[in-house]
Amino acid sequence: MNARFHAPDARSAGEEIALPGEEARHLTRVLRLGVGDAVRVFDGRGHEFAASVTSVARDAVRVRLEEACPAAREATVAITLAQAVLKGDRMDDVVRDAVMMGVAAIQPIVTTRTEVSIAALARGRRRERWERVAIASAKQCGRAVVPPVHEPVTFDALVSRLAATEAVVPIMLVEPSAGGEVVSLSALSPTPPTAATALVGPEGGWTEEEIAAAAPVCRLVSLGGRTLRADAMALVAIAALFSRWGEY
Amino acid sequence: MNARFHAPDARSAGEEIALPGEEARHLTRVLRLGVGDAVRVFDGRGHEFAASVTSVARDAVRVRLEEACPAAREATVAITLAQAVLKGDRMDDVVRDAVMMGVAAIQPIVTTRTEVSIAALARGRRRERWERVAIASAKQCGRAVVPPVHEPVTFDALVSRLAATEAVVPIMLVEPSAGGEVVSLSALSPTPPTAATALVGPEGGWTEEEIAAAAPVCRLVSLGGRTLRADAMALVAIAALFSRWGEY
Repeated sequence: MNARFHAPDARSAGEEIALPGEEARHLTRVLRLGVGDAVRVFDGRGHEFAASVTSVARDAVRVRLEEACPAAREATVAITLAQAVLKGDRMDDVVRDAVMMGVAAIQPIVTTRTEVSIAALARGRRRERWERVAIASAKQCGRAVVPPVHEPVTFDALVSRLAATEAVVPIMLVEPSAGGEVVSLSALSPTPPTAATALVGPEGGWTEEEIAAAAPVCRLVSLGGRTLRADAMALVAIAALFSRWGEY
Repeated sequence: MNARFHAPDARSAGEEIALPGEEARHLTRVLRLGVGDAVRVFDGRGHEFAASVTSVARDAVRVRLEEACPAAREATVAITLAQAVLKGDRMDDVVRDAVMMGVAAIQPIVTTRTEVSIAALARGRRRERWERVAIASAKQCGRAVVPPVHEPVTFDALVSRLAATEAVVPIMLVEPSAGGEVVSLSALSPTPPTAATALVGPEGGWTEEEIAAAAPVCRLVSLGGRTLRADAMALVAIAALFSRWGEY
């Protein structure tokens, strides 16, 4: 497969467009491609094109969209990953993995045991960073959709929002020993919902108060009897949910 | 939960035993525990004890096994992960993840596109390293069983062995575009088999010849339409199989 580039401006075959700066640099400096080389271009909203490089200047690359191509199929169930922000680079890895797995959106959340505040995330421009990670992952894994990374919100704000929507199945992933009415995955209907939100906690786990606050709104689901690493939980949960709902 | 230590010699409550050297160092140097501290000790074969430290000398720690404790439940399906050896530390990560997920055994394999030979793995004492990784992971995730890491074998040897056994369901994870008769996970019976072997390829994927050689023996299964990173494939496959077979 030819190298893939993200260009939100890609509209229709026949057009010639400029690649965004970061994509142009990737094409010239990392992959060392040049005029005439065949590439793929996707718009991040599900459209993909066979294209060829028509001009290359320093950090400015133009491509001609030759023809529309079938894009990789998206998942039937739109899963939003509501992930408690993890320490250091681990959140980057989770964003990368979640995009590769095929989530529809990523909602970073700040919980009691999250070791960073919403203000600090904003100051560090972390959301912009995660958006770049999401684009890079979509390029790698063959998706033509770049799922949005939403503004971080507090756990309480997320639960209030979930309580106010009917259309989404909210699932909170918990340790088997968590208080409240914990069910196994096989207690979920195998019929896929249209949309689901999977809540995954931080390194230190959820507090009892958080589980109690979520219980009236979310299904509390535990995956097996072992303790999973916080940075693997999202991958495991998405795979298990997709498997349950016939996506695989 | 108190810190957990692996002691293959742990037999029955009332005994006092020495911890293996590496475990003793972990107790004294990393966790800085001392005489009287309460710990957990497991034998790696499914038995776990509440214990207390009775003596500490340089790198020599003795513990008294106070009483047997219920061990974490093991999975109903015994999944062997047959993983093509990945580059650098990535294989360590896969071993760690597979133990955390609850596999019954790990079988490293050398395939056409594996960038290391069986001789080089032996010279580098890689299997011994993976065994240490497996113990560390079992300590972390709460398992009382340390799954064996078998001697690396070639892909051909594994396929011959699988062809000769009736009792194991062999599943080869492939890209959706792979040649041969690829099915989705939902084509597998939801009734859990007693044992299964999941074959996961290296960074460069399987060769056409390997897929053709495995096809008469293995179900060729693809998970969704996206390209998964080689070092995430095992985690995703195990989660999806456990979900399919009602383990979650």
